[in-house]
Amino acid sequence: MAVAAKALFFDVFGTLVDWRGSIAREARTFFEPRGVTLDWPAFADAWRGEYQGAMDEVRTGRIAFCKLDVLHRRNLEITLTRFGVTGLSEDDKRNLNLAWHRLDAWPDVPKGLARLKRQFLLAPVSNGNISLMVDLGRRNDLPWDAILGAEIAGDYKPKPKVYLASAAAFDLAPGVCMMVAAHSKDLAAAAALDLRTAHVARPNEHGPGGGEAAPTVPVDFAVQSLEELAEKLGA
Amino acid sequence: MAVAAKALFFDVFGTLVDWRGSIAREARTFFEPRGVTLDWPAFADAWRGEYQGAMDEVRTGRIAFCKLDVLHRRNLEITLTRFGVTGLSEDDKRNLNLAWHRLDAWPDVPKGLARLKRQFLLAPVSNGNISLMVDLGRRNDLPWDAILGAEIAGDYKPKPKVYLASAAAFDLAPGVCMMVAAHSKDLAAAAALDLRTAHVARPNEHGPGGGEAAPTVPVDFAVQSLEELAEKLGA
Repeated sequence: MAVAAKALFFDVFGTLVDWRGSIAREARTFFEPRGVTLDWPAFADAWRGEYQGAMDEVRTGRIAFCKLDVLHRRNLEITLTRFGVTGLSEDDKRNLNLAWHRLDAWPDVPKGLARLKRQFLLAPVSNGNISLMVDLGRRNDLPWDAILGAEIAGDYKPKPKVYLASAAAFDLAPGVCMMVAAHSKDLAAAAALDLRTAHVARPNEHGPGGGEAAPTVPVDFAVQSLEELAEKLGA
Repeated sequence: MAVAAKALFFDVFGTLVDWRGSIAREARTFFEPRGVTLDWPAFADAWRGEYQGAMDEVRTGRIAFCKLDVLHRRNLEITLTRFGVTGLSEDDKRNLNLAWHRLDAWPDVPKGLARLKRQFLLAPVSNGNISLMVDLGRRNDLPWDAILGAEIAGDYKPKPKVYLASAAAFDLAPGVCMMVAAHSKDLAAAAALDLRTAHVARPNEHGPGGGEAAPTVPVDFAVQSLEELAEKLGA
């Protein structure tokens, strides 16, 4: 089915990459040589658990916009304290924080994006910063036309500015941009601004059964993979 | 020779693409079916001739930052008047203005960038807006990691902010970024901020013999093509 969309905007954490499995692996790789053993998925969940609250500080204007790397670092300190980890050097913490730059894509993603690129402009519209998106793109062969999203907007999703600044960067009306995400909240915010929407099921994002198997809001498309999305969009 | 640079920043108009030949061709393609004959290279030169003055309005703060597309459009009006062209519709002028999105790369560029990408992060640090860079990238297979430059900085080169915001977007110190340009002024501004520099000779940018065959300021590298730059950088 052909659609009027000219650009596809992608959520990244959870939608394109398995942050939970990757952060658990990165934490293990970092801590095991240091003689520290933790519940790795629990550590990943706890670190990610601080994510929305940290961005709320920016969304509400309590603190100025800063890159997600900075918020991840703050959240890391909280998480280390909660898990009773002490004595890490500044370099250690900087390196561990870059775990978010080393996330692996879900298996359908590189091939699905390559197909979609034949027909659409592609950009991440993520809360991750540009350098983080660049590193994930290099690692996983994500063929972006540009890196859009929070850092170019100076605010965090689901604030309208992030979607609207991304459409404006491509000189496109919101109505010919499609937000692709595994999270109904993200899609609801995009739809309210007239973007088209596609939900990708990532039922195991937060561990087995801990993700959205289906959207809880009206969407234009609901698919199981990016390859299915390419199929449905005729790409 | 290996260098410490991690990212290469590229000037685009003149350095990577032949704006003069392309705009002359686009003008001819646009006007000939309308029964208008002009000196096409002169039209390209005149349109480009308004470029620095228009950006000066922004650099000096007389007008707020706006995309280069907007300045190109203003400059088009001036140029049409100068050449005595009247009666174009709004759609005509919008379409003609997009000629800047349809510029062709110099022949060495796609292959040179592909080689350089194996070793460096690559981004345009141009005064062109994101959508313009995206269209040139698609047209010419330019394998950007991200689109940086004027639009993310909110100002125009050679203002320091443009180079510094681009380095900051990659989380890099200016000293590990290299500006690549065919224009000594651009390279001098970058070098003053501690960026490394590479000059690419484009001796025919403004027509035969009308370009910089060699830099007029000290640079780290001076090459005849991007393939030679790749060779010198060991990429």
